[in-house]
Amino acid sequence: MNLHSLFCPRSIAIVGASDTLFKWGAYIMSNILDGGFTGKVYPVSVSKSIVFGRETYKSVRDIEDKVDLVFITTPARTVMAVLEDCRDSGVTNVVMVTSGFSETGEDGSRMEKEVERFAIENGMYIVGPNTMGIVNTHCSLYATGSIVRPVPGGISIVAQSGNLGNQIMEWAEQEKIGIAKFVGSGNEGVLKVEDYLEYFMDDEDTSVVLMYIEGIDDGKRFMDVASRVTAKKPVIALKAGRTQSGSQAAQSHTGAMSGSHVIFESVMKQTGIVIARTPSELLSLSAAFDSFPVPADNRVGIITLGGGWGVVTADECEERDLSIPPLPDDVMEKLDKRLPPFWSKANPVDLVGQPDIVLFEESIEYMAASDSFDAIITLGMVGSKQFALRAAEAAMNLGNLSKAEYQKFKDNLDQYQMDFLDKIILITEKYGKPILPVSLAKTDYDEMVHQLKGSKYKLVIYGSPEEAVLCLQKMYHYSRYLAKRRN
Amino acid sequence: MNLHSLFCPRSIAIVGASDTLFKWGAYIMSNILDGGFTGKVYPVSVSKSIVFGRETYKSVRDIEDKVDLVFITTPARTVMAVLEDCRDSGVTNVVMVTSGFSETGEDGSRMEKEVERFAIENGMYIVGPNTMGIVNTHCSLYATGSIVRPVPGGISIVAQSGNLGNQIMEWAEQEKIGIAKFVGSGNEGVLKVEDYLEYFMDDEDTSVVLMYIEGIDDGKRFMDVASRVTAKKPVIALKAGRTQSGSQAAQSHTGAMSGSHVIFESVMKQTGIVIARTPSELLSLSAAFDSFPVPADNRVGIITLGGGWGVVTADECEERDLSIPPLPDDVMEKLDKRLPPFWSKANPVDLVGQPDIVLFEESIEYMAASDSFDAIITLGMVGSKQFALRAAEAAMNLGNLSKAEYQKFKDNLDQYQMDFLDKIILITEKYGKPILPVSLAKTDYDEMVHQLKGSKYKLVIYGSPEEAVLCLQKMYHYSRYLAKRRN
Repeated sequence: MNLHSLFCPRSIAIVGASDTLFKWGAYIMSNILDGGFTGKVYPVSVSKSIVFGRETYKSVRDIEDKVDLVFITTPARTVMAVLEDCRDSGVTNVVMVTSGFSETGEDGSRMEKEVERFAIENGMYIVGPNTMGIVNTHCSLYATGSIVRPVPGGISIVAQSGNLGNQIMEWAEQEKIGIAKFVGSGNEGVLKVEDYLEYFMDDEDTSVVLMYIEGIDDGKRFMDVASRVTAKKPVIALKAGRTQSGSQAAQSHTGAMSGSHVIFESVMKQTGIVIARTPSELLSLSAAFDSFPVPADNRVGIITLGGGWGVVTADECEERDLSIPPLPDDVMEKLDKRLPPFWSKANPVDLVGQPDIVLFEESIEYMAASDSFDAIITLGMVGSKQFALRAAEAAMNLGNLSKAEYQKFKDNLDQYQMDFLDKIILITEKYGKPILPVSLAKTDYDEMVHQLKGSKYKLVIYGSPEEAVLCLQKMYHYSRYLAKRRN
Repeated sequence: MNLHSLFCPRSIAIVGASDTLFKWGAYIMSNILDGGFTGKVYPVSVSKSIVFGRETYKSVRDIEDKVDLVFITTPARTVMAVLEDCRDSGVTNVVMVTSGFSETGEDGSRMEKEVERFAIENGMYIVGPNTMGIVNTHCSLYATGSIVRPVPGGISIVAQSGNLGNQIMEWAEQEKIGIAKFVGSGNEGVLKVEDYLEYFMDDEDTSVVLMYIEGIDDGKRFMDVASRVTAKKPVIALKAGRTQSGSQAAQSHTGAMSGSHVIFESVMKQTGIVIARTPSELLSLSAAFDSFPVPADNRVGIITLGGGWGVVTADECEERDLSIPPLPDDVMEKLDKRLPPFWSKANPVDLVGQPDIVLFEESIEYMAASDSFDAIITLGMVGSKQFALRAAEAAMNLGNLSKAEYQKFKDNLDQYQMDFLDKIILITEKYGKPILPVSLAKTDYDEMVHQLKGSKYKLVIYGSPEEAVLCLQKMYHYSRYLAKRRN
């Protein structure tokens, strides 16, 4: 199923276009225009002659140009006529934002069946109805009802709750996690979650697929597609409705007969889908898979600036299938030469509060180079500048440091931190092992994803050890799945 | 044990005071001065005559005034002489920042024993050695090595990792969660975690106690104290070293023989301590207990602006001992009169994307008033303004809204949200039930804790449903513990 012209249209028509705030026709139109879409945009309206400064068309039929994609935002009772206009004008891609279909009861279900029949008979791809819209950051197409503008990247999202999927993009925007494509699958009258998944498999802009699922109609097809996709790229999914209360809520939300969660969970495991428990986890895991190499096995080396953080991280690792092997002799020796006499002499390696970046980098490289470790978690170095800055600020306030000296100090610290993060990416590349930095004191301007030009890897900077450990655990599981599959 | 003059001193001496950046004597001194402490501060230094613009004293003995509290930052080998000076000057409270004691090996342990003996013989209260310092926000005493300045509030912290405890305060500062007192207990040569816990029991500024623990020497005393404190106020604790890897790391960190975690966990449960799994949970749970009334039982009503969030929240509730009872007839009737015909007609109540604040408030009150629910979780209303604002911003960018109109719109939305939060506090007061708002789209300037003048309750605004559900679960457990204890 090739949805390329749906997600990468050169020309768009919006049926029901409006400039009255808080109408869907205005949300979609203003979002597309303001979002910087570079293709053509044709407003279609029977009541308004000008919308956002552009002359409208009375019908899709009136547009002289070829239209690759039509958004429909007019009421449910009007959509069949609009679809006929689309067919007659050779339009094959429709995003049906309109609600009032199967989610409202029997009448709506009948109308939705009609839409489905029409789409099949005429070879049309229809998103929705009752969809939040679509996004393709790589051609600046932001066409959702709620405006979100994440930066371009490798994560593609399909969500059976447009609202929830949109919110995940909003978090991604805040944290500068890169998104490729998004679709709120809505009622799935025509295109199903499996169709989008299959399309993302061969989409070159997509490196990771993120799914929010409440129910699947065709379990067999889902398994088949999922199993093919996971061989090529990671798929992270949250299946909601896993409890009785949740399943009842899902039924009343999307009408999803969520079936047995136990069965679905086993399907996800068999097909190598990475399972998330919460929407935040969905994004966090997707960002990890989009950034780090996966570890070959589960042996973790921990390096920390504060002993307590090492203890907490070791607990989290052991509770999440990861092991904390002892320090091998050669690493012990190398560290012993560099550290104060009373250092931990064990994994976790406690650098005893010495925020010395070179020492930190060296220690990380000693561990990454060792055959004893498959992954490294490092705590406290990133973010430690925050405390140094505060001390300098106090000295400045008390008259012991000039404003210029403070600024220079701050610039240096910022630069050290950037250099440190670059260095970590280089070590990651050199040894092909994930190195996860945990920053315990983030400033507003600190980035959550660090990139180094020319590198295929990125760094996600975690705000807590538990988040880093969860991501590492799931990467390990996926790596184990791929290894089994190869054998 | 009355530690009042230790935490609320009128005069402080700092032995080893310095103005050389990155020395402990400079950290502590500059933090105290810059933090706005209103009592007297005497720098003591043998090498410097002026520190931060103040004349120094050669010894504590030379200070004419009565000194309530002495910080020691000079090397380990000097501390006994300083302690003697303290005793001779009638000082009974010491914060021993100096490291190089039991954490470094046998020699250090011997010196620490000597300190302990001296303290007992002379009736001195000593924090540490090897402590991060103390904080008392209510008298603007910020005396930790790493500078953090949380706002005054009800949470008091004792941490066996000063670094970790300090970091929790840093998060609290960022999120404007109020802190009362903090102590990094360090090596606990003299004062133990139980002593601080006991002191916090009767401290009027403390409404919730937060503890990070790696090991307890006197289990019996700990049980006795904890059990008395939990009857008066909630105690939230993280016991680190719960796995083999974690326990080994703890031993190398604080030398804590963490013993069997199973036994300790059962001690915590028996004494009604609320158990946190991670440092972030520690703060989150403490803020919840400091803000909401605890629920009488476990029946939760959910109100959401997006169906998917209702499903996810219902799953979380059921997996965390909370129940989602059906809507009783009277609430169903009231809501049915107000909502569009295709609303969920069930708990979770899905307001079907209508961000109508009055409707939202009314729906919350219908549910809070019902005997069927002990707590309410509401999702999506707080934060929804974010999306309205973005739509208005796009319209402004496209020339369909003036800057003044946009600003007015924004001011109104901000005001609506504040009014909404005030109203939720009033409903909380009226029915004595916790109402937990989840905001899915926070702006930088949005507060995470909302207060209403004159109310004994506050609102924590959660960034995810799972965090709200976790807090509600633990509040329910504590409430059940108190009920059992009363019977």
